[in-house]
Amino acid sequence: MSEAVHTLEGWFVHHDFRTIDWSSWKLLSPEDRQAAVDEVLSLAASWKETENQKQGSSGMFTILGHKADLLFLHFRPTLEELIELEATFNKTKFADVTLPSYSYVSVVELSNYVASDNVDPETDPYIQSRLKPIIPDNKNICFYPMNKRREAGQNWYTLSMEERREMMRSHGLIGRKYAGKVTQVISGSVGLDDWEWGVTLFADDPVTFKKLIYEMRFDEVSAKYSEFGTFLVGNKLSEEAFRAYLDVE
Amino acid sequence: MSEAVHTLEGWFVHHDFRTIDWSSWKLLSPEDRQAAVDEVLSLAASWKETENQKQGSSGMFTILGHKADLLFLHFRPTLEELIELEATFNKTKFADVTLPSYSYVSVVELSNYVASDNVDPETDPYIQSRLKPIIPDNKNICFYPMNKRREAGQNWYTLSMEERREMMRSHGLIGRKYAGKVTQVISGSVGLDDWEWGVTLFADDPVTFKKLIYEMRFDEVSAKYSEFGTFLVGNKLSEEAFRAYLDVE
Amino acid sequence: MSEAVHTLEGWFVHHDFRTIDWSSWKLLSPEDRQAAVDEVLSLAASWKETENQKQGSSGMFTILGHKADLLFLHFRPTLEELIELEATFNKTKFADVTLPSYSYVSVVELSNYVASDNVDPETDPYIQSRLKPIIPDNKNICFYPMNKRREAGQNWYTLSMEERREMMRSHGLIGRKYAGKVTQVISGSVGLDDWEWGVTLFADDPVTFKKLIYEMRFDEVSAKYSEFGTFLVGNKLSEEAFRAYLDVE
Amino acid sequence: MSEAVHTLEGWFVHHDFRTIDWSSWKLLSPEDRQAAVDEVLSLAASWKETENQKQGSSGMFTILGHKADLLFLHFRPTLEELIELEATFNKTKFADVTLPSYSYVSVVELSNYVASDNVDPETDPYIQSRLKPIIPDNKNICFYPMNKRREAGQNWYTLSMEERREMMRSHGLIGRKYAGKVTQVISGSVGLDDWEWGVTLFADDPVTFKKLIYEMRFDEVSAKYSEFGTFLVGNKLSEEAFRAYLDVE
Amino acid sequence: MSEAVHTLEGWFVHHDFRTIDWSSWKLLSPEDRQAAVDEVLSLAASWKETENQKQGSSGMFTILGHKADLLFLHFRPTLEELIELEATFNKTKFADVTLPSYSYVSVVELSNYVASDNVDPETDPYIQSRLKPIIPDNKNICFYPMNKRREAGQNWYTLSMEERREMMRSHGLIGRKYAGKVTQVISGSVGLDDWEWGVTLFADDPVTFKKLIYEMRFDEVSAKYSEFGTFLVGNKLSEEAFRAYLDVE
Repeated sequence: MSEAVHTLEGWFVHHDFRTIDWSSWKLLSPEDRQAAVDEVLSLAASWKETENQKQGSSGMFTILGHKADLLFLHFRPTLEELIELEATFNKTKFADVTLPSYSYVSVVELSNYVASDNVDPETDPYIQSRLKPIIPDNKNICFYPMNKRREAGQNWYTLSMEERREMMRSHGLIGRKYAGKVTQVISGSVGLDDWEWGVTLFADDPVTFKKLIYEMRFDEVSAKYSEFGTFLVGNKLSEEAFRAYLDVE
Repeated sequence: MSEAVHTLEGWFVHHDFRTIDWSSWKLLSPEDRQAAVDEVLSLAASWKETENQKQGSSGMFTILGHKADLLFLHFRPTLEELIELEATFNKTKFADVTLPSYSYVSVVELSNYVASDNVDPETDPYIQSRLKPIIPDNKNICFYPMNKRREAGQNWYTLSMEERREMMRSHGLIGRKYAGKVTQVISGSVGLDDWEWGVTLFADDPVTFKKLIYEMRFDEVSAKYSEFGTFLVGNKLSEEAFRAYLDVE
Repeated sequence: MSEAVHTLEGWFVHHDFRTIDWSSWKLLSPEDRQAAVDEVLSLAASWKETENQKQGSSGMFTILGHKADLLFLHFRPTLEELIELEATFNKTKFADVTLPSYSYVSVVELSNYVASDNVDPETDPYIQSRLKPIIPDNKNICFYPMNKRREAGQNWYTLSMEERREMMRSHGLIGRKYAGKVTQVISGSVGLDDWEWGVTLFADDPVTFKKLIYEMRFDEVSAKYSEFGTFLVGNKLSEEAFRAYLDVE
Repeated sequence: MSEAVHTLEGWFVHHDFRTIDWSSWKLLSPEDRQAAVDEVLSLAASWKETENQKQGSSGMFTILGHKADLLFLHFRPTLEELIELEATFNKTKFADVTLPSYSYVSVVELSNYVASDNVDPETDPYIQSRLKPIIPDNKNICFYPMNKRREAGQNWYTLSMEERREMMRSHGLIGRKYAGKVTQVISGSVGLDDWEWGVTLFADDPVTFKKLIYEMRFDEVSAKYSEFGTFLVGNKLSEEAFRAYLDVE
Repeated sequence: MSEAVHTLEGWFVHHDFRTIDWSSWKLLSPEDRQAAVDEVLSLAASWKETENQKQGSSGMFTILGHKADLLFLHFRPTLEELIELEATFNKTKFADVTLPSYSYVSVVELSNYVASDNVDPETDPYIQSRLKPIIPDNKNICFYPMNKRREAGQNWYTLSMEERREMMRSHGLIGRKYAGKVTQVISGSVGLDDWEWGVTLFADDPVTFKKLIYEMRFDEVSAKYSEFGTFLVGNKLSEEAFRAYLDVE
């Protein structure tokens, strides 16, 4: 039996991906479409208010490709709030022209493979800001879920703490090279969703996502021990961009 | 040929996950929606009556994410009763706005890797209460199915009884650390559904699911010999919460 | 090259699983529902007639869970008859409210790993009754498809005939312990469907399915060499039970 | 780097599997159904004309089970003709009540593992007839796609030409035992579809498919190096059988 | 930790595969169909204008088989433009009769396994033309995604730079034999979509796709280290061919 690493948990996360039924959307009257957009933007305003009160963070994104058209990303202190947000959205007029195409449930996580012993995570401002992240204003988002492997000969969970710590340190060094270019939020989903972690990246150039993840792939922890799920990329939507995206006049 | 462990079976279990067609739900008149909710809550009252007579246990839950909106969880002495419950639900007005999105068929199981020889399982109150579990009042639920591996080099079913017993004992010790925080129901589904076991956890904080399962993942029986299916998490629904969840006025 | 075992083939088999669109069913008038049920039961009567003439066997079952609602199980001397039965069913009024959710095509098979040399299979009454099985009256049914593995290190098809024969003999001994409790029909589907075999079990208690298959899993042939597909369980439907199951008044 | 075998390519192949929406079919008026059947049979007559001109071959089949109801099988000299055939079919009235449920794109292939050096494949009548096959009149069809494995320890593509040649020779000997009973068309689909080959078998008894493929499974090339996709079986449809199959009066 | 190869990135790529709902298309009036085709061709004219301004390249293709009917292929300098193109298409009348059936997001990539040190990639005309490819006029297209393996014993990412360079050089030699017959565009999709690369081939005979990829499969880098996704093939559509393809009068 190998020693489990200690983790800190922060806000719960719901990645709520939606596909738009554009035919149905166009069949609505211009007034109904206007009202539907207004209703979503009114929700978005309330999400912003929550963020201002440091009780969570939410963002809207377009997604490129057939997997989804939109992503509603929510960070909240409790799972209950996320369920409430999903139900509230489903009750909107706009939700009637969308289908949930994918989603991911997780909780922001810091693992102390490289933790300092000198800070109290409950009060340390840096740790607290990472456990309760505010969605940044970068243009692009990238999301993917991942596992650590448990195959014979490549089993992360039978490595010693020292081996895992050393590999995670090396892994972190690559990430550090992209500091300032990429903001990364790691959320744990063991017991919450189908993979062990969700990774959410923010940047102003999607090539950065490719370069960061490709470079990491040659690192031992990715090369040998990581399994990746689906990747979704898109753009942040301002209020105006959301209106323009749905404008079919 | 390895020696099979002896198991005790209790109540049959049906995890009946449903997705709501919210557009259709909203198209119903307020009176029809009211009648539909009343009809489901009337069924729920009959389920409670069955529970009071110690002939089963049932619960309603919301599920976060695109995999399902609701879970109707039923424990009953026979498979016939579960089939009858499913048909009765499908005949309700509310069922017309739902689609079965996932389900799991199993039977509550105790394996005697660590059994005491001094009790008669047919009469022992503790064993009987575990074989015929009453759904607790915890806020959160977590469900996932799992297998034991049969790969070359990591094959649970070719290990000796002693090896398996020792690993299960160690595994149980982790679970014991979470006693009081998590209630766990293990149900066997070999011959009944696509995985070998279903695991249903109840707690008042979903982070507990993550911490328990993540800690276990470093344990040999999980690290080497377990395969996991989909994970679904949600919240218990009281009668009032069910009404509020479906309220679209 | 390993020696192939000789097999005997009997009746062809079609497991025809259907999901009911309950909303559409309820939208029919009571007269139309009555007529639809009568039409299916009239088919069932003709299937019984075929069985009486020893030209096949058919049965109707409810299935628990989201994978299917009904199973129509048919044994017939030729594939043509099974295609004809499927087309005839699809032309009924009731079929309009069902969707084919799964199916399995196979042919009853006896492999002579443990055959006696002293009988002529073409005339031996026991062998003939196993090649042309009549669906028994047990309450419960279990179906699953399976393969023998062809992985490096666990490859059934590179074992010698002697090794395979010895393992199948040991495997059969477990089955024999359940004689009287479980009736088993093995049908081969190499070249007919996606797995190599279909297994159909009949019993009066579904726990028997679990105990039999779980005990076999520790046997070498299952532990090392078997891969399993989906498992479906349900109950046999008499004419009256079929009427009651579909009664939505 | 291993030496690639030389291959000869003949006609392109499209297996176009369709599922019938029987409810919609029944909703058509008898006149519309008659016109829809006539339109398809008129296409079939033009396909026959193409075959008479030795410019291709086409056939219609019923498929047993939920995977498809019909197969339209086309051999043509170019991919363009197959695209044209698909578009023409999609424009028929009958196509409106079908959904494409599966398809396979390939090109007839002969590999010269066992080729004679004394013939010019461009003019040799036997080779030309195999590269440009006419669909035979056998009652039954079986289709499946397959790969050669590239796993560590079981990698076909790292074997020497000699090893591959010897295994293919042994494989061919089994096939030869079924000469006269089974007609086999091998088509390559590397770069055209998801598997490396498609195999189409024709026979007058579907048990022959099972016996041939099962016997081959013990042969080294199948036992160690082959991966199989889905299997579909059915019956050839004459003009009258097509009319009868769709007759819902 | 193995050394990552340096890569150059060019235009972003969106493979937008669509399935046509032919029944809905036929239900439109001839005038509406005419207007819908005109609208798409008007978009196509604007794409051509973009290409003339060297700001991207776009093409329309028919795809054979059930996976898709059409492919809209777009190269553009930014992800934002691709998202805008997708939204613009979704707002057309024609899009209402299509469903997105598959898509792939990537960015044109050159890896310098075999790079010359004497050129400045930012200005070198050859490198710039490969990073910003114009879709050629060949009749046929082939698309497939692929990964390099990370399995124990066959792990590309733990090989040394020298080993990878040597294998890629040998791989390139095969490609060079097809120079003039096949145009190849490699685009990287690590961090952008579910596989690591997308490969798009253009040729005037689809047999060339098969022969190129099949020959490469015996090359070590494919034989041992490559995993392939789905393969889609089709034909380039001129304006007239697009009109004819959709003509259902």
